[in-house]
Formats: sequence, structure tokens, C-alpha cells
Amino acid sequence: MPDHVIRNVRPLGGPAVDVVLDDGRISAMLPAGRAAPDLPVLVDGQGQLLLPALVESHVHFDKTLWTMPWRPNSAGPTRNHRISNEHTVLQNVQVPIAERAGPLIEHCIARGSLYFRSHVDCQTVWGLRHVEAMLAVRERYRHVIDLQLVAFPQGGLLISPGTLDLMKAALDLGVDVVGGIDPAGIDRDPIRHLDTVFQLAAHYRRGIDIHLHDLGELGRWEIERLCDMTQAFGLQGQVVISHAYSLGAFPPADLHGLADRLAALDVAIMTCAPPNVTVPPVAMLRSRGVTVCSGSDGIRDAWSPLGDGDMLERAMLIALRFGWSKDEELAMAFDMVSRGGAKALDIASYGLDAGCPANLLLLPAENIGEAIVNRSLQRTVVSRGRIVARDGVFVGA
Amino acid sequence: MPDHVIRNVRPLGGPAVDVVLDDGRISAMLPAGRAAPDLPVLVDGQGQLLLPALVESHVHFDKTLWTMPWRPNSAGPTRNHRISNEHTVLQNVQVPIAERAGPLIEHCIARGSLYFRSHVDCQTVWGLRHVEAMLAVRERYRHVIDLQLVAFPQGGLLISPGTLDLMKAALDLGVDVVGGIDPAGIDRDPIRHLDTVFQLAAHYRRGIDIHLHDLGELGRWEIERLCDMTQAFGLQGQVVISHAYSLGAFPPADLHGLADRLAALDVAIMTCAPPNVTVPPVAMLRSRGVTVCSGSDGIRDAWSPLGDGDMLERAMLIALRFGWSKDEELAMAFDMVSRGGAKALDIASYGLDAGCPANLLLLPAENIGEAIVNRSLQRTVVSRGRIVARDGVFVGA
Repeated sequence: MPDHVIRNVRPLGGPAVDVVLDDGRISAMLPAGRAAPDLPVLVDGQGQLLLPALVESHVHFDKTLWTMPWRPNSAGPTRNHRISNEHTVLQNVQVPIAERAGPLIEHCIARGSLYFRSHVDCQTVWGLRHVEAMLAVRERYRHVIDLQLVAFPQGGLLISPGTLDLMKAALDLGVDVVGGIDPAGIDRDPIRHLDTVFQLAAHYRRGIDIHLHDLGELGRWEIERLCDMTQAFGLQGQVVISHAYSLGAFPPADLHGLADRLAALDVAIMTCAPPNVTVPPVAMLRSRGVTVCSGSDGIRDAWSPLGDGDMLERAMLIALRFGWSKDEELAMAFDMVSRGGAKALDIASYGLDAGCPANLLLLPAENIGEAIVNRSLQRTVVSRGRIVARDGVFVGA
Repeated sequence: MPDHVIRNVRPLGGPAVDVVLDDGRISAMLPAGRAAPDLPVLVDGQGQLLLPALVESHVHFDKTLWTMPWRPNSAGPTRNHRISNEHTVLQNVQVPIAERAGPLIEHCIARGSLYFRSHVDCQTVWGLRHVEAMLAVRERYRHVIDLQLVAFPQGGLLISPGTLDLMKAALDLGVDVVGGIDPAGIDRDPIRHLDTVFQLAAHYRRGIDIHLHDLGELGRWEIERLCDMTQAFGLQGQVVISHAYSLGAFPPADLHGLADRLAALDVAIMTCAPPNVTVPPVAMLRSRGVTVCSGSDGIRDAWSPLGDGDMLERAMLIALRFGWSKDEELAMAFDMVSRGGAKALDIASYGLDAGCPANLLLLPAENIGEAIVNRSLQRTVVSRGRIVARDGVFVGA
């Protein structure tokens, strides 16, 4: 039996429809006014824009200082300084991870995201503290969001003895994805790093999501090696390269061959599109068939006090980063925080089709472009057929 | 007689004070609770952050499509395409400039800006239409904001016969500042362009604000020539170079000599800090004594549908552009949308000192950094001692 209806919303900016929901899923979209009059109304959309819930493909919930008083960033200039600064900061934070990550997740939900991939520190300095906390957070919000966790060796994998065991323990406990970080730049032994990561993924039958900040030729060379290994291990469709700054160091036309290889192996690229480094040429990659997604990265943490987790704001930042202003370009930016993210994260049944979970974002906007430009906070968020945020405020799990 | 008091606000994040207002100006700041109890309370600040009203140093109000339905960007790929596309778009807009620019200005006021410099098209295709409309808009809001207008030859000055006469007519009508655009790239005769602009400024005793998009060595060479002319015409402290992308094409250390010259001549640099082009090295320029300010540039116009006019968001975008995260860096970004703008725009009595106009922004935030990061919309704006926006909504001129 259909159980509810969302009346008079415009999917992706198209003509107004009534969305009939059945057991938490979309069962039908009918022209507005055509749904049976006796169906209980979940939302009267009043012509608002209807979007699929947004996808946050790269975040670090375990590191956030959300809800805490302002803390000036005290890190030194290099990545190693920032890593050790984070140890100092987080060791002195009394508020448990769940009490920082939880409210941040609720904020992100209220902004319209219901799919998340969060990297979780696997560092000997923490032991399993971050992993266990984030597993509990995942459990707490499992009826509202899809939260994937990545075992992330922030401090290096090979250079930091004990980290591999922590990652195994994390995967044993139910962490979803195998992480990695700068096989050359941080771990200093790229082939052994990648081999270790891919062996783990093969053993645990998990996907891979590797942080790759290494720049220029070095980073590009590592991406080639990631492709080699993806092929060798048969992990097509299971690998995401996060950041991949190096792909921004070359004329896009010089990367067609590599892009075709990424597309053939279904290796996805995640970029937050930061403006202060080189970034992957998203339009070219997409035109060659590569899946591209985006994320917030750190949100108010020891690395930077900036960040909000609003994936419509992220789409705006992407558009600004690439000088995009046309509707089809804004649609690309939107795809990176919606369907592109769902594909990269291998989320089944994403979207507005009948049969998909009713994971929806409603907001006042004429179309996708205006949603990105205005970023109205008057958002209604529906998770699995239930309202979980109203007027941009989380109303319950 | 003191006439009002704003109770319990924290100027720039410091200890709480009462701000006593007298005839639209700040007359005293006393420790919170110390203002005379019988003074009428304008705002009970409840410990909110108190900032000077923000400065929008570079905007194009006459071009905006604000309040209009979404319009896909239809421009071709080059600047000339975009200029001719704008002609087509604006020629087909029925809504008068005042009915687009006015609501946008009210939106900007509600976001906390009370000082503006708007470039106004002087193009033969428009005649004086844009100038007259913006002069009327300036008049309409003169009791609330300081709005400077720049005579802007968007389509070129020398290459477009009749433009010089339009600019003279604009200045005769009361436009404040002489504009210019790409003396080499657009006008194709840099020395004659600059000479014309400086002659106009000298004749009318006005400042200069020149758009300089020309890149690399070409743009840097033009900046040197702008310095030559500033010196030759004795216009120290009267010249702003807007955009100056070329300064981002060189290692900052190679520009110390030029920076010192800009500082000595008091030539200011305006950058919107766009992420898709090279941008001036703001931190270095400031460290050598150069005044640097920022603006929104176009807001929802034929060039791009993006833009909001929130100068706290601009400060965030600046911080992201330069990878700034420390408190002193966020303070630099804030300076560019406040005191730096006031200096570049030669605004007298700007700030929170006794005697300054009571042009104030109150919002819930611990300090400047958090104001930039959170960008709360719960903003109260006071212009010349009167509340002009509450909860982020304009409440009257």
C-alpha cells in the first residue's frame, strides 16, 4: 500500500509532480494533483525543487571540533607539522568524538546530505579510539543515513609500525573501505604501500579510497601505478583516488590516455576543488567517462577552522574553481555532489526513480543552478520516507 | 546629548561593551553595563560580535539580473563574446535597473555592507542609461549607504568612439571615479588609454579605478605604467587597480620592488580572489604596505548567475583561495572587506572609534574567524545610528 505523498514538487526543476512513497521508497511520480486525494500528505511542496539527497564523498568526521569553542589554528607550515599539531589538539579535547561528529552529521543532514564517506584515523597514537567511536556513530544514525567508513592511515602506513594491524582490526570491526595516503610522499615506498593496500582490499573484499596529495609527475606516476594494481587485483569499480592534485599539473589534453584508463578501470576521482592547489580537470575527465565526485574534507578541525559540510555550497565552490557559469556546468557541479558521488561510493538505487529509497531534498529554487547559487537554508530533508529536517534544522533520527 | 545605546556587544571579539551613539555616530564605548541606565536601548546585543559595517569595493550593480527569473548563461567563450552577450541580455530585460539594483543593494545591506563602489557601464550602446539609473539609486539610498560610482568603459575607451564623451557626461552628472579597462588587451593602446584616464581624473579631480585583467608580463608592465602616471599626475592615494591578475603570475619575491612602489604611491589593489585565474599575492603585498581590498564583482548577471554580495562569504572565499586558516590570516581576509576597503575607497572616519558614523554589523559569533566561517544570517545592521536590517532582512531605508 502506498503510505504517503509529497505533493507538488518539481524534480530537478522539471514539471510539478506528486511523489508517492511506499515503505520508505519512491513508488511513483504522478503529474501534480494526480495522486489519490486520500493519501496522507508528508509534505506539501508548493512547487519547490525536488532533488535526490546529496552525497558527501569525502569527510573526516572523527577529526572535527564542531560544537567546540573557537580554537586558533596552531599548526606549523608542513603536512607533518599539521599531523603532529592535530595529535596535540585532539589529545587535549575533552569532548568525545560522538559529541562532535554527531551534531556535525545532523547539521549535514539538515543541509541535505544523506550519503557520506568518512575517513577514520587509524594511527597508533589513537589506537582504535577513532574507529570505535565512528562505528558507534554509524550505528546511531543508521536509520537515517548511509555512512561509509574508511580505515585511514593519516600518519603513514609503512613508516608507522603498528598501523597495518590497526587497519586490519578496523576492517575486522566493520569499517567499510581500505584507505591509503601518499604512497611516495608520506610512506616513501609507493609500490609496497599500494601492494599492502590492495592486498588488504582483496583479503577483506573491500573497496579502496586513497588520499593522494603528491604533486606533478610524482602523483601522476602513482595514479598510473594505482591503475596497474586495480587491473592486477581485479578491483575495477572499487577504487577511489581522493584529491589527485597532480592531475591539475598538466594540460588536460596530455591526460586523455590516463583518463581513458581510469574510465576503463572505473577508478573514480574525488576532488574538493580547493582553490590553492592544482586540481583534476573535472570536465575533461567526465567527458572521457571518468566518475568524479566531491566532498568537504575537514570541517572545523585542527587543520582549518573553515568548512560547513553544505554540499550545495561545495557545488558552488566547484563552479567557482573551474569558472563554470552555464547551466550544463552547474549541472556537472551538482552531479559531483549527487549522482557522481553515489556512483563513486557504489550506492545502489540512488536517485529519483521508482524503487529508490525516498531520500530527498526539497528547497525553494527554480532549478539546480539556482539551488547552487542561492543555497536557501529553507530545506526539507526526507530520509527513507520520513522527514528528518525542516527549515534547515535536524528534527530527529 | 547621547541618544541611544547598543548594550553588551563585543567589538572585534574583545570584551563586552556598551556603545553609546550620539547623532548617528559612536560617541563612546564603555565596559558593558556602564552606560547610563536611562539611555534608550537601540539593540540589546546579548554578547554578540560587533563589527564595523563591511565594505564592498568592487561590484557592478547596474548589470545585475537580481529578482529576475533564472536565465541560463548564454555567452560565448571569450571576453568579447561575453561583452556582446551582455548587450543582448540587458537589451531584452524589461525590469528597470533600479528595480534590480535596489533590491540587491538591500540584500547587501542586510548582509552587513554599508560602503560600496559600483562600476557603472559607460558604453555607447547604453548612452547614459546606466549612469542615470545608478545616480538615482545612489540618491535613493543616500541616507543609508555610501555608494561610490565609477564611470566604467566596459566596451573599451579608445576603440569605442563616443565613450570618452559619455564618461565626461557621467562625471559631469556626479559619478565619483574615473574607470578604465585593459589598456593593452582591450584598448590596444596602453599609453594613450592611461593618459586619457589620468587626464580625465586630473581635470575632474577624481580618483581612478581601472579594471586590469591583462595577464602575465603584459599586465605587470601596465601596472608599472600605472605607477609612472600616478607619480606624474600626483595622484598618490587616488588610484585602485582592480583584479590585477598578472601579479599572480610571478613568485611573490620577484614583485617586492613593484609592491614597494605601489605602497609608496599608495596605489591600492582590489582582488575578488577568483579561484580560476592567477591572483595578486595579497599577504606579500600587505606585508610591504600595499592597501588591498575585495569585492563581489558581478552578482547574478549576464556574465555568471553566481554571486551573493555577502562580504563575509567573500572573506571566506579569500581565505580558501590563499589556503588561509590561522586567526591572523582570517583577520587579513576580514581586513580586505572592511578597513582595507575603506582605505582603498578613501572613506573618512571608518571603524569603531568614537566619532565614526555608527555603521555597524552585529552577529552571533565568538570572533572574526567564526564570523567568516559560520556566516550566520542572524545579522543586525545599524546605519548612522538606525537599525536598517534585522535577522538578515532589510527593514527600511
